[in-house]
Amino acid sequence: MSDRETVLFANAAFYAAFATRDVKAMERLWASGDVMCIHPGWPPLTGREAVMASWRNILGGQNAPDISCRKAVASIYGTTAIVTCVEVITSRDETQQALCATNIFVRAAGSREWHMIHHQSGQAHIDPKRIEEDDVPPMN
Amino acid sequence: MSDRETVLFANAAFYAAFATRDVKAMERLWASGDVMCIHPGWPPLTGREAVMASWRNILGGQNAPDISCRKAVASIYGTTAIVTCVEVITSRDETQQALCATNIFVRAAGSREWHMIHHQSGQAHIDPKRIEEDDVPPMN
Repeated sequence: MSDRETVLFANAAFYAAFATRDVKAMERLWASGDVMCIHPGWPPLTGREAVMASWRNILGGQNAPDISCRKAVASIYGTTAIVTCVEVITSRDETQQALCATNIFVRAAGSREWHMIHHQSGQAHIDPKRIEEDDVPPMN
Repeated sequence: MSDRETVLFANAAFYAAFATRDVKAMERLWASGDVMCIHPGWPPLTGREAVMASWRNILGGQNAPDISCRKAVASIYGTTAIVTCVEVITSRDETQQALCATNIFVRAAGSREWHMIHHQSGQAHIDPKRIEEDDVPPMN
Protein backbone atom coordinates (compact mmCIF):
# COMPACT_ATOMS: atom_id res chain seq x y z
CA MET A 1 0.00 0.00 0.00
CA SER A 2 1.20 3.51 -0.80
CA ASP A 3 1.53 6.35 1.74
CA ARG A 4 -1.55 7.88 0.16
CA GLU A 5 -3.58 4.71 0.71
CA THR A 6 -2.42 4.17 4.29
CA VAL A 7 -3.11 7.76 5.33
CA LEU A 8 -6.61 7.64 3.81
CA PHE A 9 -7.10 4.50 5.89
CA ALA A 10 -6.00 6.44 9.00
CA ASN A 11 -8.38 9.26 8.05
CA ALA A 12 -11.23 6.75 7.71
CA ALA A 13 -10.33 5.34 11.15
CA PHE A 14 -10.64 8.85 12.59
CA TYR A 15 -14.18 9.22 11.24
CA ALA A 16 -15.08 5.68 12.36
CA ALA A 17 -13.97 6.57 15.91
CA PHE A 18 -15.92 9.83 15.67
CA ALA A 19 -19.11 8.17 14.35
CA THR A 20 -19.04 5.33 16.89
CA ARG A 21 -18.07 7.63 19.81
CA ASP A 22 -15.01 5.44 20.45
CA VAL A 23 -12.90 7.52 22.84
CA LYS A 24 -10.17 4.87 23.19
CA ALA A 25 -9.74 4.59 19.41
CA MET A 26 -9.66 8.40 19.20
CA GLU A 27 -6.93 8.51 21.85
CA ARG A 28 -4.87 5.87 19.99
CA LEU A 29 -5.01 7.58 16.64
CA TRP A 30 -3.86 11.01 17.85
CA ALA A 31 -0.12 11.57 18.25
CA SER A 32 1.34 12.32 21.65
CA GLY A 33 2.56 15.79 22.47
CA ASP A 34 2.43 18.77 20.19
CA VAL A 35 -1.03 18.41 18.58
CA MET A 36 -3.61 21.06 17.67
CA CYS A 37 -7.34 21.03 16.96
CA ILE A 38 -9.85 23.63 15.75
CA HIS A 39 -13.43 22.44 16.16
CA PRO A 40 -16.13 24.38 14.25
CA GLY A 41 -16.47 27.79 15.90
CA TRP A 42 -13.96 27.02 18.66
CA PRO A 43 -10.68 28.77 19.38
CA PRO A 44 -7.59 26.65 18.54
CA LEU A 45 -6.74 24.00 21.13
CA THR A 46 -3.07 23.13 21.59
CA GLY A 47 -1.47 20.13 23.30
CA ARG A 48 -2.70 16.58 23.67
CA GLU A 49 -4.35 17.18 27.05
CA ALA A 50 -6.65 19.96 25.82
CA VAL A 51 -7.36 18.24 22.50
CA MET A 52 -8.27 14.88 24.06
CA ALA A 53 -10.42 16.57 26.71
CA SER A 54 -12.40 18.19 23.88
CA TRP A 55 -12.92 14.82 22.16
CA ARG A 56 -14.02 13.13 25.37
CA ASN A 57 -16.50 15.98 25.79
CA ILE A 58 -17.82 15.78 22.21
CA LEU A 59 -17.98 11.97 21.98
CA GLY A 60 -19.54 11.59 25.41
CA GLY A 61 -22.15 14.31 24.95
CA GLN A 62 -25.82 13.97 24.13
CA ASN A 63 -25.28 15.86 20.91
CA ALA A 64 -22.42 13.84 19.41
CA PRO A 65 -23.07 14.19 15.68
CA ASP A 66 -23.87 11.43 13.19
CA ILE A 67 -20.91 12.09 10.91
CA SER A 68 -19.55 10.66 7.68
CA CYS A 69 -16.56 11.59 5.52
CA ARG A 70 -16.72 12.19 1.75
CA LYS A 71 -14.27 13.16 -0.97
CA ALA A 72 -11.10 12.65 1.08
CA VAL A 73 -7.97 13.78 -0.80
CA ALA A 74 -4.44 13.18 0.55
CA SER A 75 -1.18 14.99 -0.18
CA ILE A 76 2.06 13.47 1.08
CA TYR A 77 5.10 15.53 2.12
CA GLY A 78 7.71 13.02 3.31
CA THR A 79 6.47 11.72 6.66
CA THR A 80 3.67 14.32 6.88
CA ALA A 81 0.31 13.95 5.13
CA ILE A 82 -2.53 16.42 4.69
CA VAL A 83 -6.04 15.14 4.06
CA THR A 84 -8.93 17.39 3.12
CA CYS A 85 -12.47 16.10 3.05
CA VAL A 86 -16.11 17.05 3.37
CA GLU A 87 -17.90 15.99 6.55
CA VAL A 88 -21.63 15.33 6.38
CA ILE A 89 -23.59 15.66 9.63
CA THR A 90 -27.03 14.09 9.70
CA SER A 91 -29.48 15.28 12.37
CA ARG A 92 -32.15 13.13 13.95
CA ASP A 93 -34.73 14.71 11.65
CA GLU A 94 -32.57 13.54 8.68
CA THR A 95 -31.53 17.05 7.69
CA GLN A 96 -27.91 17.24 6.61
CA GLN A 97 -25.21 19.85 6.71
CA ALA A 98 -21.74 19.86 5.22
CA LEU A 99 -18.46 20.93 6.80
CA CYS A 100 -14.95 21.00 5.34
CA ALA A 101 -11.97 19.58 7.22
CA THR A 102 -8.20 19.56 7.17
CA ASN A 103 -6.65 16.53 8.88
CA ILE A 104 -2.88 16.24 9.24
CA PHE A 105 -1.02 13.04 10.04
CA VAL A 106 2.63 12.16 10.66
CA ARG A 107 4.43 8.83 10.65
CA ALA A 108 7.80 7.90 12.13
CA ALA A 109 10.52 7.21 9.53
CA GLY A 110 10.27 3.53 8.62
CA SER A 111 6.81 3.15 10.15
CA ARG A 112 3.58 2.67 8.16
CA GLU A 113 1.42 3.92 11.05
CA TRP A 114 0.07 7.46 10.75
CA HIS A 115 -0.95 9.51 13.78
CA MET A 116 -3.10 12.62 13.71
CA ILE A 117 -1.44 15.87 14.74
CA HIS A 118 -4.05 18.39 13.61
CA HIS A 119 -7.75 18.65 12.79
CA GLN A 120 -9.71 21.69 11.68
CA SER A 121 -13.34 21.52 10.69
CA GLY A 122 -15.54 24.42 9.67
CA GLN A 123 -19.02 25.07 8.33
CA ALA A 124 -19.29 24.96 4.56
CA HIS A 125 -22.09 26.49 2.53
CA ILE A 126 -22.37 23.38 0.38
CA ASP A 127 -25.57 21.59 -0.51
CA PRO A 128 -25.00 18.09 0.96
CA LYS A 129 -26.90 16.59 -1.99
CA ARG A 130 -24.30 17.97 -4.43
CA ILE A 131 -21.14 16.87 -2.64
CA GLU A 132 -20.37 14.07 -5.06
CA GLU A 133 -20.23 16.47 -8.01
CA ASP A 134 -16.74 17.23 -9.32
CA ASP A 135 -17.02 20.97 -8.81
CA VAL A 136 -19.17 21.58 -5.78
CA PRO A 137 -20.52 25.13 -6.04
CA PRO A 138 -20.87 27.16 -2.83
CA MET A 139 -24.51 27.78 -1.97
CA ASN A 140 -25.79 31.35 -2.18
CA MET B 1 16.88 32.09 13.00
CA SER B 2 15.11 28.85 13.87
CA ASP B 3 12.60 27.05 11.62
CA ARG B 4 9.88 28.26 13.97
CA GLU B 5 10.94 31.89 13.54
CA THR B 6 11.31 31.69 9.77
CA VAL B 7 7.92 30.02 9.25
CA LEU B 8 6.20 32.61 11.46
CA PHE B 9 7.85 35.20 9.21
CA ALA B 10 6.37 33.41 6.16
CA ASN B 11 2.97 33.34 7.88
CA ALA B 12 3.21 37.09 8.56
CA ALA B 13 4.11 37.64 4.88
CA PHE B 14 0.95 35.77 3.90
CA TYR B 15 -1.22 38.11 6.00
CA ALA B 16 0.70 41.16 4.72
CA ALA B 17 -0.06 40.10 1.13
CA PHE B 18 -3.68 39.49 2.11
CA ALA B 19 -4.08 42.85 3.91
CA THR B 20 -2.42 44.86 1.13
CA ARG B 21 -4.21 42.93 -1.68
CA ASP B 22 -0.80 42.07 -3.18
CA VAL B 23 -1.59 39.36 -5.74
CA LYS B 24 2.02 39.02 -6.91
CA ALA B 25 3.30 38.48 -3.36
CA MET B 26 0.49 35.96 -2.78
CA GLU B 27 1.52 34.07 -5.93
CA ARG B 28 5.19 34.02 -4.84
CA LEU B 29 4.51 32.70 -1.35
CA TRP B 30 2.34 29.74 -2.42
CA ALA B 31 4.12 26.57 -3.54
CA SER B 32 3.72 25.32 -7.08
CA GLY B 33 1.65 22.24 -7.80
CA ASP B 34 -0.21 20.21 -5.25
CA VAL B 35 -1.72 22.93 -2.99
CA MET B 36 -5.12 23.10 -1.29
CA CYS B 37 -7.23 25.90 0.18
CA ILE B 38 -10.49 26.03 2.14
CA HIS B 39 -11.86 29.57 2.37
CA PRO B 40 -14.58 30.20 4.99
CA GLY B 41 -17.74 28.45 3.81
CA TRP B 42 -16.20 27.29 0.51
CA PRO B 43 -15.67 23.73 -0.70
CA PRO B 44 -11.99 22.64 -0.75
CA LEU B 45 -10.01 23.95 -3.72
CA THR B 46 -7.19 21.76 -5.02
CA GLY B 47 -4.30 22.64 -7.32
CA ARG B 48 -2.42 25.88 -7.78
CA GLU B 49 -4.58 27.10 -10.66
CA ALA B 50 -7.86 26.94 -8.70
CA VAL B 51 -6.28 28.26 -5.49
CA MET B 52 -4.60 31.25 -7.15
CA ALA B 53 -7.79 32.07 -9.11
CA SER B 54 -9.63 32.25 -5.78
CA TRP B 55 -7.02 34.62 -4.33
CA ARG B 56 -7.08 36.88 -7.40
CA ASN B 57 -10.86 36.99 -7.00
CA ILE B 58 -10.74 37.77 -3.25
CA LEU B 59 -7.91 40.31 -3.38
CA GLY B 60 -9.30 42.08 -6.45
CA GLY B 61 -12.87 42.28 -5.17
CA GLN B 62 -14.70 45.20 -3.65
CA ASN B 63 -15.12 43.26 -0.42
CA ALA B 64 -11.51 42.23 0.23
CA PRO B 65 -11.37 42.15 4.03
CA ASP B 66 -9.24 44.28 6.34
CA ILE B 67 -7.44 41.38 8.01
CA SER B 68 -4.83 40.94 10.73
CA CYS B 69 -3.27 37.84 12.29
CA ARG B 70 -3.04 37.20 16.05
CA LYS B 71 -1.69 34.44 18.27
CA ALA B 72 0.22 32.55 15.58
CA VAL B 73 1.67 29.25 16.85
CA ALA B 74 4.00 27.09 14.74
CA SER B 75 4.77 23.38 14.94
CA ILE B 76 7.65 21.99 12.88
CA TYR B 77 7.73 18.46 11.43
CA GLY B 78 10.98 18.22 9.46
CA THR B 79 10.50 20.32 6.35
CA THR B 80 6.76 20.81 6.98
CA ALA B 81 5.35 23.44 9.35
CA ILE B 82 1.83 23.97 10.64
CA VAL B 83 0.78 27.41 11.85
CA THR B 84 -2.51 28.06 13.60
CA CYS B 85 -3.69 31.58 14.29
CA VAL B 86 -6.70 33.78 14.84
CA GLU B 87 -7.65 36.14 12.02
CA VAL B 88 -9.40 39.40 12.90
CA ILE B 89 -11.53 40.99 10.18
CA THR B 90 -12.46 44.64 10.66
CA SER B 91 -15.41 45.98 8.70
CA ARG B 92 -15.75 49.57 7.49
CA ASP B 93 -18.05 50.30 10.41
CA GLU B 94 -15.23 49.13 12.76
CA THR B 95 -17.05 45.97 13.87
CA GLN B 96 -14.73 42.99 14.17
CA GLN B 97 -15.10 39.27 13.77
CA ALA B 98 -12.67 36.45 14.50
CA LEU B 99 -11.79 33.43 12.39
CA CYS B 100 -9.41 30.56 13.07
CA ALA B 101 -6.91 29.39 10.48
CA THR B 102 -4.57 26.52 9.72
CA ASN B 103 -1.67 27.45 7.44
CA ILE B 104 0.78 24.79 6.26
CA PHE B 105 4.18 25.52 4.76
CA VAL B 106 6.95 23.36 3.31
CA ARG B 107 10.60 24.12 2.57
CA ALA B 108 13.06 22.29 0.35
CA ALA B 109 15.81 20.41 2.23
CA GLY B 110 18.66 22.87 2.80
CA SER B 111 16.50 25.92 2.02
CA ARG B 112 15.29 28.48 4.57
CA GLU B 113 12.41 29.60 2.34
CA TRP B 114 8.96 28.32 3.29
CA HIS B 115 6.13 28.08 0.75
CA MET B 116 2.46 27.72 1.59
CA ILE B 117 0.78 24.48 0.57
CA HIS B 118 -2.50 24.75 2.47
CA HIS B 119 -4.78 27.33 4.08
CA GLN B 120 -8.07 26.77 5.88
CA SER B 121 -9.96 29.54 7.58
CA GLY B 122 -13.30 29.25 9.33
CA GLN B 123 -15.64 31.35 11.43
CA ALA B 124 -14.93 31.26 15.15
CA HIS B 125 -17.37 32.22 17.87
CA ILE B 126 -14.73 34.21 19.70
CA ASP B 127 -15.13 37.71 21.05
CA PRO B 128 -12.43 39.66 19.13
CA LYS B 129 -11.82 41.79 22.25
CA ARG B 130 -10.76 38.68 24.21
CA ILE B 131 -8.36 37.13 21.70
CA GLU B 132 -5.24 38.10 23.60
CA GLU B 133 -6.35 36.19 26.70
CA ASP B 134 -4.52 32.90 27.28
CA ASP B 135 -7.65 30.77 27.21
CA VAL B 136 -10.07 32.33 24.78
CA PRO B 137 -13.54 31.07 25.67
CA PRO B 138 -15.96 30.33 22.85
CA MET B 139 -18.85 32.81 22.82
CA ASN B 140 -22.30 31.46 23.62
